[in-house]
Amino acid sequence: MRELHFHPRVSVEEVEEGSNLAPKFGEDGLMPCITTDAGSGEALMLGWMNADALRLTLQTGEAHYFSRARQSLWHKGATSGLVQRVIEARIDDDQDAIWLRVEVAGSGASCHVGYRSCFYRAVPVGPDAGGALRFTETARTFDPVAVYGDASNPTQL
Amino acid sequence: MRELHFHPRVSVEEVEEGSNLAPKFGEDGLMPCITTDAGSGEALMLGWMNADALRLTLQTGEAHYFSRARQSLWHKGATSGLVQRVIEARIDDDQDAIWLRVEVAGSGASCHVGYRSCFYRAVPVGPDAGGALRFTETARTFDPVAVYGDASNPTQL
Repeated sequence: MRELHFHPRVSVEEVEEGSNLAPKFGEDGLMPCITTDAGSGEALMLGWMNADALRLTLQTGEAHYFSRARQSLWHKGATSGLVQRVIEARIDDDQDAIWLRVEVAGSGASCHVGYRSCFYRAVPVGPDAGGALRFTETARTFDPVAVYGDASNPTQL
Repeated sequence: MRELHFHPRVSVEEVEEGSNLAPKFGEDGLMPCITTDAGSGEALMLGWMNADALRLTLQTGEAHYFSRARQSLWHKGATSGLVQRVIEARIDDDQDAIWLRVEVAGSGASCHVGYRSCFYRAVPVGPDAGGALRFTETARTFDPVAVYGDASNPTQL
């Protein structure tokens, strides 16, 4: 696989208006990634990438993240089969966030709890603010125990 | 305005499957927010919220963020008029990220550079990885100098 070099961040104008990829990772070495369904536009997850995850995503066309829970590079779908094929990748103005539009293999789910999207609960807004969350998906798409077995749950309190 | 209290994070099951809003902010007190256009599904920006920004967003129905560049609470559109009205808010499985579906007032832009979306450049994927970024918007929606005057640019190198 060809090496993929990121460009240095030379000027604000070049970062915002240039055609060179010059990503900025946080102090923890990570950048947030918005992943949406290329067909429906639904937000599937908010992931994190380090430099290796971003390089591998762009080179392979399959989403790679950095798991903060496991502190390791993570090829999404390697365990579950629910690989995310990248239809389009976009970088934001100051190049410190990325947006992937993906097609998900298999059952089409992206959430470790078993739902299609990680964002399966709506939060009341306006006069109802502070009220109960409302589930937007009524059934899980897959059984996480069957897929992940006894792997540790990434959710941390 | 009624007080809006967040719930304590009692158990993984309650955080993932319960109906109580129990958000988790990072060590810097911030949570990433995906903001998409409620009509087109396009990702407009990746913002950051502290607890006050999340409360105000839910209570007022207008997106509030925490500006990392200015280190202050930020009512989006207060300067530019480009207010984001929240059509729907969703929280993710482990409640450490939020997704807003919004309608943008005025010219409909959300990016300080003047574009509709902050994600106005596509990054080549696969065999073309490492190549030049491709602009997906050909013209700015507004003139940032006219709107923001000589306010400092939030992009940091």
